[in-house]
Amino acid sequence: MSFYSDNNASVCPELLAAIQAANAGPARAYGDDRWTLALDEAFGRFFGTRVAVFPVTTGTAANALALATLTPPYGAVFAHELAHVVRDECGAPEFFGGGLRLVPLAGEGAKLDAATLERALDAAPPSVHTVQPTAVTITQATELGRAYRPAEIEALAALAHARQLFVHMDGARIANALVTLGCSAAEITWRAGVDALSFGATKNGGLAAEAVVFFRPELVRDFELRRKRAGHLLSKSRYASAQLLAYLSDDVWRRNAARANEAARLVGAACSATLIEPVEANEVFARLGEDGKARLRSQGFEFYDWGARGSGEARFVCSWDQDPAEVAALCRALSAA
Amino acid sequence: MSFYSDNNASVCPELLAAIQAANAGPARAYGDDRWTLALDEAFGRFFGTRVAVFPVTTGTAANALALATLTPPYGAVFAHELAHVVRDECGAPEFFGGGLRLVPLAGEGAKLDAATLERALDAAPPSVHTVQPTAVTITQATELGRAYRPAEIEALAALAHARQLFVHMDGARIANALVTLGCSAAEITWRAGVDALSFGATKNGGLAAEAVVFFRPELVRDFELRRKRAGHLLSKSRYASAQLLAYLSDDVWRRNAARANEAARLVGAACSATLIEPVEANEVFARLGEDGKARLRSQGFEFYDWGARGSGEARFVCSWDQDPAEVAALCRALSAA
Amino acid sequence: MSFYSDNNASVCPELLAAIQAANAGPARAYGDDRWTLALDEAFGRFFGTRVAVFPVTTGTAANALALATLTPPYGAVFAHELAHVVRDECGAPEFFGGGLRLVPLAGEGAKLDAATLERALDAAPPSVHTVQPTAVTITQATELGRAYRPAEIEALAALAHARQLFVHMDGARIANALVTLGCSAAEITWRAGVDALSFGATKNGGLAAEAVVFFRPELVRDFELRRKRAGHLLSKSRYASAQLLAYLSDDVWRRNAARANEAARLVGAACSATLIEPVEANEVFARLGEDGKARLRSQGFEFYDWGARGSGEARFVCSWDQDPAEVAALCRALSAA
Amino acid sequence: MSFYSDNNASVCPELLAAIQAANAGPARAYGDDRWTLALDEAFGRFFGTRVAVFPVTTGTAANALALATLTPPYGAVFAHELAHVVRDECGAPEFFGGGLRLVPLAGEGAKLDAATLERALDAAPPSVHTVQPTAVTITQATELGRAYRPAEIEALAALAHARQLFVHMDGARIANALVTLGCSAAEITWRAGVDALSFGATKNGGLAAEAVVFFRPELVRDFELRRKRAGHLLSKSRYASAQLLAYLSDDVWRRNAARANEAARLVGAACSATLIEPVEANEVFARLGEDGKARLRSQGFEFYDWGARGSGEARFVCSWDQDPAEVAALCRALSAA
Repeated sequence: MSFYSDNNASVCPELLAAIQAANAGPARAYGDDRWTLALDEAFGRFFGTRVAVFPVTTGTAANALALATLTPPYGAVFAHELAHVVRDECGAPEFFGGGLRLVPLAGEGAKLDAATLERALDAAPPSVHTVQPTAVTITQATELGRAYRPAEIEALAALAHARQLFVHMDGARIANALVTLGCSAAEITWRAGVDALSFGATKNGGLAAEAVVFFRPELVRDFELRRKRAGHLLSKSRYASAQLLAYLSDDVWRRNAARANEAARLVGAACSATLIEPVEANEVFARLGEDGKARLRSQGFEFYDWGARGSGEARFVCSWDQDPAEVAALCRALSAA
Repeated sequence: MSFYSDNNASVCPELLAAIQAANAGPARAYGDDRWTLALDEAFGRFFGTRVAVFPVTTGTAANALALATLTPPYGAVFAHELAHVVRDECGAPEFFGGGLRLVPLAGEGAKLDAATLERALDAAPPSVHTVQPTAVTITQATELGRAYRPAEIEALAALAHARQLFVHMDGARIANALVTLGCSAAEITWRAGVDALSFGATKNGGLAAEAVVFFRPELVRDFELRRKRAGHLLSKSRYASAQLLAYLSDDVWRRNAARANEAARLVGAACSATLIEPVEANEVFARLGEDGKARLRSQGFEFYDWGARGSGEARFVCSWDQDPAEVAALCRALSAA
Repeated sequence: MSFYSDNNASVCPELLAAIQAANAGPARAYGDDRWTLALDEAFGRFFGTRVAVFPVTTGTAANALALATLTPPYGAVFAHELAHVVRDECGAPEFFGGGLRLVPLAGEGAKLDAATLERALDAAPPSVHTVQPTAVTITQATELGRAYRPAEIEALAALAHARQLFVHMDGARIANALVTLGCSAAEITWRAGVDALSFGATKNGGLAAEAVVFFRPELVRDFELRRKRAGHLLSKSRYASAQLLAYLSDDVWRRNAARANEAARLVGAACSATLIEPVEANEVFARLGEDGKARLRSQGFEFYDWGARGSGEARFVCSWDQDPAEVAALCRALSAA
Repeated sequence: MSFYSDNNASVCPELLAAIQAANAGPARAYGDDRWTLALDEAFGRFFGTRVAVFPVTTGTAANALALATLTPPYGAVFAHELAHVVRDECGAPEFFGGGLRLVPLAGEGAKLDAATLERALDAAPPSVHTVQPTAVTITQATELGRAYRPAEIEALAALAHARQLFVHMDGARIANALVTLGCSAAEITWRAGVDALSFGATKNGGLAAEAVVFFRPELVRDFELRRKRAGHLLSKSRYASAQLLAYLSDDVWRRNAARANEAARLVGAACSATLIEPVEANEVFARLGEDGKARLRSQGFEFYDWGARGSGEARFVCSWDQDPAEVAALCRALSAA
């Protein structure tokens, strides 16, 4: 019974069907197909504004390409110290960005806040001797399963823009955040000040379907060339784009995320006394003790260790296709502990 | 009726079925799944030797990652001036390789030959002032639809190895070459001296399924880190790997390539008097004149211009799923001209 | 009366004379001259071991080239958060290192210690998803004017080597540290575990004379190519090398550093109640209050603000050619405050 | 008797005196000194227009920094196949330019001409799949000792600008070209369409004194950050700048170049029957035969082999400080042959 990661999940039937439906005969390559050409409009409807959208196959590629487009090689990008771009991408932003620098900052719930960013900016006034602050990136939901409220993003983005920084959002789990927040996609992105977004669908039912969404078309300038140059322009783009279109249709994104979130809510409720973080998406972080973790594992539950060695902390991630019976079993085991 | 590119082709039923079959429930992410873990053995059988195999989604990624693994930033990689890495990858090898240099060389049929490589090496003896020759890359089948014979590769590789150069093969259309040559995969790769191979399946029936194959495991050293860092380690690797396994099973690769080659053979025969290159894979290059090309287009045939503007040259590419009726129609139109 | 920086100092007569002496007629270019060819032996005597030495013109180049030689693009280099490589080189290590990452750590007196490094290493166990720890860099004397004791370096290097990390030292002010410590150059470098050193002479009397010193010749491998490729191989290398030879002769380095240190000692003694850091080299850090600083400036003293805005902290740097009368004047002004 | 290279030459007395004169007491570091601050005006007078000037220590740095400022990572820079940037800089432009591509072109006398550039541009129309043509670089005087006429530069630059390419000039030997042409510096630079210039003084009497000159201030944007990041911002910039100021004063540049050119003229006249190229600067290329070369060497003359092995070609370079007696001796030896 795996609660390791939503990366372990299967592809949801709607997206698999979309792939099959896109397979009828030949289609223009490299994004000149009708699925890819429909992305800007579909995402424009989803976000309620004009956007430029580019499909890619991994979140790492989406993040690194977006940041490289926003940032010169001598630029600095502020990020939470637990962010995926900092901890889990083997330096992809530095690679794509020609040696840009990520500046790790602390923050509760793996969130950045405006005050922390301001202190960091003030602490290192730019000169020809320093890297140049050019962007800030936040993750929605965060690496600790927390959801930024629109006002939090607005405050951060207002400061960032006042200091001439671009705002990027890693939305690997944006659907899970939206379901929790109950707000529109616009409210946590462009209306709050986000300039570019890594829009994730893979964890939430896709096969390999991510997109970079630019809310300010003038930023797109060199993105397309960078994507091709990085080997991330798919010859048969239609299959990625068909997934993304299906994902936005008929509330697939919402339904999948709601299922994952509900499972996490149940798991969180079952271990509420040990929670390290409020459950605001599809991840649960709990302090179970090393013994508690060993007991769960002996019962067949799989999950990641969290925190420092010996901290007794655990991370459970629920997926769109998490078996309800397994969720119930985990809840029973946690309640019994 | 599109003869533009095999990138326009659909996914063959066997590979689509393999994707669906791999979709039963959760699986470990990032390549720790049973499909990906089976690749080394499956490719080992295909090539008749021990290999290390890494799936990626594009040929550009495969080529650039392989070359970056073989070559330091100050290295020089020799390639045919028409090679995909030189003309069609927006500088991906330079990007992945930290600024390595591609040295373009001439050669009949888009092939490199040992004598040309030797002259190039002798013309620029390395010193601390020069880039350092470190690799040579060849394409099988070539960008002009030609197939290297085993002996040609052997001669080139023998020289390369004698000069301490690695040998890379861009096998975006290796299946088409194998069908034409009728030899084993071993004969045109490791036995002939190829150290690393970009193995293509996407053009020949895949959705997005390429692999980097290392014939010398000691070269693999930093490849995995480079792939992750480039955003080319798929979280749901199983779907790419399942395609590759299916592709090697039951002669799918051969059947698909044979169909594409046979269509090209027919097209080539129909315009034999105008052929620029012998037809040795699934591409046909013919000098039809600007009028001839316009006439074909007015009849509904789509294809790329080739050569210099006004040269009257055309490129036809046949895919595994090329409609036989369309092939017959093209042949009639060409014969009538 | 400038106490801004030892970068503002002039060239000492011995090194200027060496430049003139090297100017008699033609000499082989690009380091094939008798001055450059003598460097390995001269530095070998200075350090009491076999070394490979490469002159460059700036400390930034020395640091970045050394780190790029020790570290792959996906590598992580641990450094103090106040280190020059982190704060004052506009991302040069990231640029030269193909996007490597600097990991900033805290530490008293701008020193790294073994325990802090160990915690950092344990907190982020390497996997294919992370940057790979490959080096640690320390500064002697530190950015807060402190000198690492041999035992401190030994402890750090022992841990680093046990974890397969290389040890680099930024010795922009190594002469000042040596004079304070009264130990041999060997004791704070190779004998303590330093693998590569940026040896600074510019701040201490040179015109533009730094050197990268490798204590493990097998590391030199690609350094020379990287240096050339970075535009740091001087055509007329003899003038940089002649400076370095003169600097090591007749105790020039020691005499210059001793004068700078003694000036700093006097300044530190004059404001001992306000010192932020013990004075262990040629820099003085004091908390004078904003009023105190304004008063000094109104008397004609120039120096850098230190710390956060409004902290009232000041940095005074004394050079080899600091006018004793100006030092005395500063001391009087500080004592009066 | 060395005719190897003008890189072997000593520093001329005027520039050495300027270094000494700049050595009186402290001065602001990193270019905030009165010598560096005077560069824009001094070069502005020299070129008869407004310029932004940045001193660096090597021609490789000047070229690579200038090209990286003009060109994105996915850009292509057209250059003569014999150009220093192509053959003698170990890939520095690719390194500084984040993996940009140099496209080597042929041309008589190591000159590029507009027709060749146009053919190259037309042969590879840009798309998302290709590198993007962004600059052309020419060398004055060329690697074969030839001087571009103003009209030749104008034609090339007109085409380049019409195609949205920047024009860079490698002026490592611009003084030698100016002396030969007898025209103003303006005529072969900005008035002819050059956007950025690597201005060389090292070969012609400097110690390590090159400058990047921008004729279009809007291009300077990120140059300063790139220079710092590359370790090419000198802490004691005054010594480089003082050399450059002295070089432009009192016709030092002209006098030195005239002496070198005159020596080359004499050598060329002495072997006029064997000349491969007209002598238009301070270099002589002659076909002396392998025996002829061996005979000269046995008489104590040092020079580089040129051309392919066994071609019997030789290169003689004359410096500003070439001993007239040695020139006369070489002329006698050549005449006797």
